[in-house]
Amino acid sequence: MAADLSPLFPIISDDEASPRVAAVFADIRETRKTDFINNFWRVIANDPDNLEQTWAELKHVMAPGAIDSMTKDLIYVAVSVANNCTYCIRSHTASARTKGATDEHLKELQAVIAAASRTNRLAIGLQVPLDEAFI
Amino acid sequence: MAADLSPLFPIISDDEASPRVAAVFADIRETRKTDFINNFWRVIANDPDNLEQTWAELKHVMAPGAIDSMTKDLIYVAVSVANNCTYCIRSHTASARTKGATDEHLKELQAVIAAASRTNRLAIGLQVPLDEAFI
Amino acid sequence: MAADLSPLFPIISDDEASPRVAAVFADIRETRKTDFINNFWRVIANDPDNLEQTWAELKHVMAPGAIDSMTKDLIYVAVSVANNCTYCIRSHTASARTKGATDEHLKELQAVIAAASRTNRLAIGLQVPLDEAFI
Amino acid sequence: MAADLSPLFPIISDDEASPRVAAVFADIRETRKTDFINNFWRVIANDPDNLEQTWAELKHVMAPGAIDSMTKDLIYVAVSVANNCTYCIRSHTASARTKGATDEHLKELQAVIAAASRTNRLAIGLQVPLDEAFI
Amino acid sequence: MAADLSPLFPIISDDEASPRVAAVFADIRETRKTDFINNFWRVIANDPDNLEQTWAELKHVMAPGAIDSMTKDLIYVAVSVANNCTYCIRSHTASARTKGATDEHLKELQAVIAAASRTNRLAIGLQVPLDEAFI
Amino acid sequence: MAADLSPLFPIISDDEASPRVAAVFADIRETRKTDFINNFWRVIANDPDNLEQTWAELKHVMAPGAIDSMTKDLIYVAVSVANNCTYCIRSHTASARTKGATDEHLKELQAVIAAASRTNRLAIGLQVPLDEAFI
Repeated sequence: MAADLSPLFPIISDDEASPRVAAVFADIRETRKTDFINNFWRVIANDPDNLEQTWAELKHVMAPGAIDSMTKDLIYVAVSVANNCTYCIRSHTASARTKGATDEHLKELQAVIAAASRTNRLAIGLQVPLDEAFI
Repeated sequence: MAADLSPLFPIISDDEASPRVAAVFADIRETRKTDFINNFWRVIANDPDNLEQTWAELKHVMAPGAIDSMTKDLIYVAVSVANNCTYCIRSHTASARTKGATDEHLKELQAVIAAASRTNRLAIGLQVPLDEAFI
Repeated sequence: MAADLSPLFPIISDDEASPRVAAVFADIRETRKTDFINNFWRVIANDPDNLEQTWAELKHVMAPGAIDSMTKDLIYVAVSVANNCTYCIRSHTASARTKGATDEHLKELQAVIAAASRTNRLAIGLQVPLDEAFI
Repeated sequence: MAADLSPLFPIISDDEASPRVAAVFADIRETRKTDFINNFWRVIANDPDNLEQTWAELKHVMAPGAIDSMTKDLIYVAVSVANNCTYCIRSHTASARTKGATDEHLKELQAVIAAASRTNRLAIGLQVPLDEAFI
Repeated sequence: MAADLSPLFPIISDDEASPRVAAVFADIRETRKTDFINNFWRVIANDPDNLEQTWAELKHVMAPGAIDSMTKDLIYVAVSVANNCTYCIRSHTASARTKGATDEHLKELQAVIAAASRTNRLAIGLQVPLDEAFI
Repeated sequence: MAADLSPLFPIISDDEASPRVAAVFADIRETRKTDFINNFWRVIANDPDNLEQTWAELKHVMAPGAIDSMTKDLIYVAVSVANNCTYCIRSHTASARTKGATDEHLKELQAVIAAASRTNRLAIGLQVPLDEAFI
């Protein structure tokens, strides 16, 4: 995932996009109010079924609901740190910032991730049994 | 971590608590406004240094700041699902509910975790290179 | 991995052991100076190639060398906590105890695992760049 | 975490350090008997609470006890390999070497990590049930 | 995920299924040629959007293509072992068996997972640099 | 694991290979019908025991059996994506291609990995209990 390594499939430019791919790219641009399509979409575009399905899911899931859209990006970053996905940490931290995340939000996010990672391992490592209240 | 397995160290009851342990238990009760001390604390209480340090961290990190306390529990659950910690998923989902999390919050949380887990693996699996914008 | 679930392949008793399996069981008993053969070996015994290869590796790798045998069990437990393998945490914690691990060893082990899990996530989450000294 | 990527927050130089940060840097230097402060500390220094808490924990946990300090670094590396943290693998392997770890220690460490990773997956994959002795 | 723990949301019976949920259940039954609907679907049925999206993805992705359907179940199991999902290991091993997987397939699968887990950690632990041929 | 970082132990060239190492290199060349020995083998060659054991395991486990050799590489890649091992993803994707894997195979592989990663987290996150049929 380093910046200087080629992906397993080529990065599809706008000129190379098939009509199905172009339609998804257009919807990403309209939904996000930006002309920028990042590499993630341009690489999975090699499999148009996957592209359509992934975009449909993310468009729906990341939209504001009971949880607002910026918070969803923070949760997304938390999962990405636990999964160690550099691309995902950086792209969704950037996304959170465009939705209003401040330095304070991001510092608190990292502190919660760190505390959870630590206590997750203590609960697992010490084999703490579930309390009746949690069963 | 199943309910029927003993932990690596015994569950410390209130009667067995040393003064250092009792002091932490008292602060947990006062901070959380409940008499209930869950097994996690009663097992790490076998190592009072660890107990004091863990409680000090969680008390500070999970307190409301730029991110509210319920949202911090949702982020904590997200990390715990990624780390597959049954104890942590159940205890912090319960905690989030006491702070106002509804079924809708929890369903959206699971949907964001699922979407992030899926796209994390696509970014890693396809070896998507970082865009200039994210470097 | 709960105690009440059946494994994917049956637990091979001494009576059911083929000559190849019986030979490995005999070497485990002689090496460990105990009659007890735990379920891990009895389940992988369904694939004698895997059994022979796994036992040969563990017998060699876990033997004392520059690192003593008890410390190797502590390292094994650390990996197992990170991988969340209940069976492995419990069996190798028990093994470490037979080699002299005290409560103090095990508490310090858990504290190091917890600290590493926490700082691993901070280094990943904050995307800390490598110092020249570590390249 | 590649060497050529910027972190999420800036690397704090000695000149930029606030009094709280400078005090932690001074204690790191004194404790470690070196002038070198690696990037990990300089990045989390953007959140002084996190810096103080992390340093206090590591200073305490990694100090010699029932387990010596070099062995604690080996355990730390084992967790970092399981969590795939390049920064942590490299910095704590370097630290272990300053405390006396030889090539033999490091080769045996990698062999134990490999064996544990392999058998962890067999125990999980085959769903090996816990023996009565480990419950 | 133990058999005796309740899920975070109730298990939806056929009688409790809304028309949207009932329609997905009917399609699962028709596609799989069985009346059995396992708990996974009955729990995510609490979020009909998630149920519809998940079923649409799995129906499409697990169908035979360049890779046959049984092999896709083996790959699914491999990911589930790496992610330590007991439910997923057991349900997709059962599914693979209904599609013709024999004991030999499953033993070889576990052996490949074990070998990959081991060598993954060696490549990461030893920080093996990419060959020109793989860049 | 970036291309520009040095490994923990040096890359052993053919000229530097001891007789034991040279014998393994020769067998790799003969088995794979290529002169190319990739860095993975040249780095673990610093520990000849580990080299011999790893090659013996991989030669045996990745050979065609009930599961063909190309499919074993796909399963290996699936585990490597779940473990986030860049080196392993790239080297075994290349290996799968030499054994006949097409773009279609690799796209379907990624889609199955993505679907499994997503549903693994839903089963864990929602704490779905095992059906009687899977116990």
